[in-house]
Amino acid sequence: MAAPTNNMARGYAVTDPKNYLDFQVKEYELEPLADDRITVAVECCGVCGSDHHTISGGWGPWETKFVVTGHEVVGKVVEIGKDVTSVKVGDRVGVGAQVGSCGDCKWCKNDNENYCPTPVHGYNTLWPGGAEHQGGYSTHIRAQELFVFPIPDAVPSVEAASMLCGGLTVFSPLVRNGVKKGSKVGVVGLGGLGHYAVLFGVALGAEVTVFSRSDAKKADALKMGAKAFVATDPGFEKGHFREFDVIICCASSSSLPIDELLTCLDVGCKFVFVGMPEEGIKNITSQSMAGSGVALGSSHIGCRTEALRMLEIAAEQKVKPWIELMPMKDAAKAIQAVEDGSVRYRTILTQDLV
Amino acid sequence: MAAPTNNMARGYAVTDPKNYLDFQVKEYELEPLADDRITVAVECCGVCGSDHHTISGGWGPWETKFVVTGHEVVGKVVEIGKDVTSVKVGDRVGVGAQVGSCGDCKWCKNDNENYCPTPVHGYNTLWPGGAEHQGGYSTHIRAQELFVFPIPDAVPSVEAASMLCGGLTVFSPLVRNGVKKGSKVGVVGLGGLGHYAVLFGVALGAEVTVFSRSDAKKADALKMGAKAFVATDPGFEKGHFREFDVIICCASSSSLPIDELLTCLDVGCKFVFVGMPEEGIKNITSQSMAGSGVALGSSHIGCRTEALRMLEIAAEQKVKPWIELMPMKDAAKAIQAVEDGSVRYRTILTQDLV
Repeated sequence: MAAPTNNMARGYAVTDPKNYLDFQVKEYELEPLADDRITVAVECCGVCGSDHHTISGGWGPWETKFVVTGHEVVGKVVEIGKDVTSVKVGDRVGVGAQVGSCGDCKWCKNDNENYCPTPVHGYNTLWPGGAEHQGGYSTHIRAQELFVFPIPDAVPSVEAASMLCGGLTVFSPLVRNGVKKGSKVGVVGLGGLGHYAVLFGVALGAEVTVFSRSDAKKADALKMGAKAFVATDPGFEKGHFREFDVIICCASSSSLPIDELLTCLDVGCKFVFVGMPEEGIKNITSQSMAGSGVALGSSHIGCRTEALRMLEIAAEQKVKPWIELMPMKDAAKAIQAVEDGSVRYRTILTQDLV
Repeated sequence: MAAPTNNMARGYAVTDPKNYLDFQVKEYELEPLADDRITVAVECCGVCGSDHHTISGGWGPWETKFVVTGHEVVGKVVEIGKDVTSVKVGDRVGVGAQVGSCGDCKWCKNDNENYCPTPVHGYNTLWPGGAEHQGGYSTHIRAQELFVFPIPDAVPSVEAASMLCGGLTVFSPLVRNGVKKGSKVGVVGLGGLGHYAVLFGVALGAEVTVFSRSDAKKADALKMGAKAFVATDPGFEKGHFREFDVIICCASSSSLPIDELLTCLDVGCKFVFVGMPEEGIKNITSQSMAGSGVALGSSHIGCRTEALRMLEIAAEQKVKPWIELMPMKDAAKAIQAVEDGSVRYRTILTQDLV
């Protein structure tokens, strides 16, 4: 894998949200290689639900003229800006759903750069000054050093890729809610995010219970390491009063049995949405939270220190995501599978443009 | 003040929720003086919004045959069960919105007895076994030792009374959310609870900002020690991005500008409802919480250690609640004022039955 020629990359681009499954190979200029940026030659890239929401226009009009999605990238460092010190050319690295932040605000300085008010996202985003950033269904991406994570040797690239958004999105609320050996973790919904919540919950030493609408994924959940599986039939909450130290909600339905799930949280604990129902959350009363002094919250990816710790744990605990590989040219098929909910449990696109 | 004669108390009772302003003096038998219980001769009793909700049937049908409300009691210990060691006859004590718990569960043992799944409330409640407990618009109440708090000499009875529910209800979420010197605290709604959130926020060393629908209570808020006052007109949130370490919501409207208020919370912080809108909370999206990784929660009174610390701080910092005194026979007038929202900011009924 080589550095880009004349600053140009090639990627699988969508040019019209109305035809969002029509990926075409496009050549485009990368953003400048600023002093704190790194160029990564893409080896593989995970497919995230966000990719579908963005290219279809479901999350609103685009910021960039066309969109090359992909924000779960693993590849090799092929260029570094002159201020970069943490990696060198040739290193294997990962980049997730954020490639830039201001670096100056309170949050960039206190391990909350994932909450920087002026983030640069993994695609469909502009750098300050206006340069477009495109994503990882491509030959190359550029990112600020802070968002480029060395991948431990023990973690294969295709296994690391979807950890960088999907994994980190659940790992951050797990550790921010104090999950450790013996913690009781609930996971609602077993999709791409939910499967990572099980894997990393278990890797952190927690006892994980999966809540799902039916028993369809029970065998998978148990194979991933979950201790228990609960189909959310009426009355499901009865045997789980105040059992959990945190519940990570990975479902994106807006008709979840939230009041019932809240009774499953121990006093003072939190129900964290990482799934993003497009409609609002309904039927919440403060009374339903007061009974055990619990809270409903949400979370946005994770910070660098969490990403590094996650990768370290993945290496040590041999965390194995359940992934399906496809060549990058099958991006449309991969997006279709996200739309159908048929992915088990994350798709990784492998490089075929070089 | 004497011990009850023949185990009988007298109180201002409501006998029919349809005529909930028709208080009549009634004589009734107290629950037994169990070994861990204390009899308190009532000196004064605060009037809480819950009193109105309960006697009017707004919170559902009654548990007891008639209701003597009042769960912000200060008085003298006149009898103690044989296992009681923390107070003696003659001590001045307070009792709040909880008078009993199981004593055996995990929560009773980890300073969360206010979240015991089998609590005995301040009135309209039964002890295990079925004995009725009546409240503090009366000559005497009985409570478990755990819920009887010595009142520091520096705090007058009429000032301590409404701290025991109103004060503790906001003090607990303040301290559980880490409020200390220099913390930034938002308080939504300046009523009985909100005024205590300001007073105790300030006493803990925080900078307090009050959010209210109009400027009507601005002067009061500043006099209570608030640093700033914000009328929630459209766009009000603009100057307060991520300013607060916690927001205590004391308003009971279900049409609060919650999304806007959430943007005023710092990353990872909490919006705590202690006001209880009868309708649900509307228009919440997980997206509105994800932006700063914040949460919406609630809280239920507080535990003994928090009550004792609150009273200690009230003594040390000379916390002065804004109260109006009335003789107990004016209970109907006091309830009417709660209903009208005209109380500034808490009414205390003083003993007139003995």
